[in-house]
Amino acid sequence: MTENGKTSDSGYRPQNESSLRAYLAGLAPVAALLGGGPADWTVEEVGDGNLNLVFIVRGPAGGVAVKQALPYVRLVGESWPLPLSRAHFEHLALSAHNRLAPGLVPRVLHYNETMALIVMELLQPHIIMRRGMITATRYPAFAEHITTFMAQTLFGTSDLALPADKKKAEIATFCGNHALCKITEDLIFTEPYMIAENNRWTSPQLDDAAKAIREDGPLKVAVSELKVKFLSEAQALLHGDLHTGSIMVTESETKVIDPEFAFYGPMGFDVGALIANLLLSYFSQDGHATRNDTREDYKAWVLTQVEACWTGFVQKFLALWDGALWDEARAGDAYPAALFANDPDAHRLAQERYIRALLADTIGFAAAKMIRRILGLAHNIDLEWIEDPHRRAACERRALRLARQMMVERHAIASIGDITGAAAKT
Amino acid sequence: MTENGKTSDSGYRPQNESSLRAYLAGLAPVAALLGGGPADWTVEEVGDGNLNLVFIVRGPAGGVAVKQALPYVRLVGESWPLPLSRAHFEHLALSAHNRLAPGLVPRVLHYNETMALIVMELLQPHIIMRRGMITATRYPAFAEHITTFMAQTLFGTSDLALPADKKKAEIATFCGNHALCKITEDLIFTEPYMIAENNRWTSPQLDDAAKAIREDGPLKVAVSELKVKFLSEAQALLHGDLHTGSIMVTESETKVIDPEFAFYGPMGFDVGALIANLLLSYFSQDGHATRNDTREDYKAWVLTQVEACWTGFVQKFLALWDGALWDEARAGDAYPAALFANDPDAHRLAQERYIRALLADTIGFAAAKMIRRILGLAHNIDLEWIEDPHRRAACERRALRLARQMMVERHAIASIGDITGAAAKT
Repeated sequence: MTENGKTSDSGYRPQNESSLRAYLAGLAPVAALLGGGPADWTVEEVGDGNLNLVFIVRGPAGGVAVKQALPYVRLVGESWPLPLSRAHFEHLALSAHNRLAPGLVPRVLHYNETMALIVMELLQPHIIMRRGMITATRYPAFAEHITTFMAQTLFGTSDLALPADKKKAEIATFCGNHALCKITEDLIFTEPYMIAENNRWTSPQLDDAAKAIREDGPLKVAVSELKVKFLSEAQALLHGDLHTGSIMVTESETKVIDPEFAFYGPMGFDVGALIANLLLSYFSQDGHATRNDTREDYKAWVLTQVEACWTGFVQKFLALWDGALWDEARAGDAYPAALFANDPDAHRLAQERYIRALLADTIGFAAAKMIRRILGLAHNIDLEWIEDPHRRAACERRALRLARQMMVERHAIASIGDITGAAAKT
Repeated sequence: MTENGKTSDSGYRPQNESSLRAYLAGLAPVAALLGGGPADWTVEEVGDGNLNLVFIVRGPAGGVAVKQALPYVRLVGESWPLPLSRAHFEHLALSAHNRLAPGLVPRVLHYNETMALIVMELLQPHIIMRRGMITATRYPAFAEHITTFMAQTLFGTSDLALPADKKKAEIATFCGNHALCKITEDLIFTEPYMIAENNRWTSPQLDDAAKAIREDGPLKVAVSELKVKFLSEAQALLHGDLHTGSIMVTESETKVIDPEFAFYGPMGFDVGALIANLLLSYFSQDGHATRNDTREDYKAWVLTQVEACWTGFVQKFLALWDGALWDEARAGDAYPAALFANDPDAHRLAQERYIRALLADTIGFAAAKMIRRILGLAHNIDLEWIEDPHRRAACERRALRLARQMMVERHAIASIGDITGAAAKT
């Protein structure tokens, strides 16, 4: 695995539209999928993310997406190096997700470790969910799909499904993805709560709010407790960046992409990321409303999605747990059947307490994700695309207020309805 | 590293008194330490533990202890294989302990990975602390030493002291010790709560108590929550088996031995193991009392040690944390100075909450360790050496009663004094 960005020794080189065409021509199955000859293919670099090159390649018969890691953070430049090995971990995670949640992630057609390059099926006509939500589009199948994805991938890599030796081997492997974890550790759990060069916010409108958060002792303690969880609690294989920009949708399909931040961490980080981004979309709607389109109905729909994502996830997660109790082949070392299969009361109590703890984590991580998108380095277009800074700041201030409450009260909040209720009133 | 017990391919072979003499003669520094020639040395196999060969070698000038892993569990035999690699992890942990807590562990003189063999300084006239406590011996320096050992080794390998990339590399390494972890997972957190071939207890006296524990839903849920923590929470490098049989003492010295169960896990498991074994000693004293030696004073002393171990550990752990706040070279990624160095109220709140959570873990793990020593496979001589089964069962029943309360109420117990108070009243 290439741990640095040196191109000369390793054979790695960043692709351009012409080199990629030649490269793909050498891959018979990909060339067959595209159809025609290389001269018939269009190649377009479309990467609008923060880290990588992304090419869309279309031929007469079909298309592929090609993602290649760069040896630095694209958003910042060569001054911020980042190991190419993240493509290796993305490929591992994509493979796990294809196995655990087939149909809900892109299929992998080719992977080249040296080139840090993955060729995937082209998702079309899917669009990035975040963009659809900015135009108030509803996705009726989304909650059903994403809760299946989360339940299957998180349960399936947890101690409830894996024997301890296998899980430890997986944990050890993903410990190698520490550079990507470090981005999360710094940008989500640390920098928004201090004066840091990377931070930005709608200024001067939110200067007071940013200052209040930097001086909020209980909030800093809470976010640091969540950081410790992120640093040390290897509960399951996380996607690691499960926001609405990592989900591609149509009316009837949902695909989760970009798991390059994957590692074994606390499940609530994934579930919380999703809920945070739905809540940010909710708070952004007033900034996109017009006289003819108040967005009130859409806002109500978004809050139903927050609730459906949590309740659907819990229901499916617990169903998998119930199933594992009676099927040794699906069971891990946690909550062994020998103790619980014939004691339904104890089994229910165990599940209740497990989900209660997971809800607190989810709420806390969701709050951390909301705050970082308003005060930290990387913002969301949901809010960024509100041009009037006063209007944007008003949306952001409400999101910050709810997030602050969520994080410090995360252990006391009893249900997801308390969150959506508070959001509607904030 | 040798992952199985095959001797022919790898070069591994179990030593006997004669082969070991020849082996040590080939190690110049060890031979010099022993003095004289091989013919002047006495070699004695003294292993009374459950897993390994242990030799004491004495020469005219000095002595060494030699520990060699066997490819199976010595207590059970070749039917229960166990990887030789545990010697590798023991050596890694011993090296870490020598660095973090110098003087409180034996020095390593030689390590041979192929032979799974460690040569250490001979600790004399130290005895196993458990044996001393059975004869009501006080160790005035013990609490001071063991709290230093725990604070230095646990803090020094936690996210409070290590940067995340370094800690992840360490976690990955110790994931390889899964076979030893599995012993703990099965024998401590699972089997005592079910019908299992390995279990034994003072029967028939405790038959009802063993049955009650197997049918205790809230207790099974609680011990399973602790098992999940043990499986997934990589808080710090644990000794992994820190009972009074792993501590050698004199009036003035304390040495922690045998860290072959070492891995990154929840700190409360180490602190709890210690406290559990002090409490078991406490409850065993009535079984060793005679008309002339009621053990009442000694029992009171043991309870002061329980309190001193917790309060001393906390005090030293927090002092290290305070120090790290002002010294970047000692600070890890948790609770960064940028958020807390200039906010003493937040720093104190963070510490209070951290210690509160650690107390709950410690109490829970202590309870699990007490129960397994009375109902599981491996018992303690503190209790085993009480010959009269009625008398022994009376001691064990009191220990079980306290342990049950500790485990299910671990989040509600506010101080270590509540435990010692309850022990005195149980």
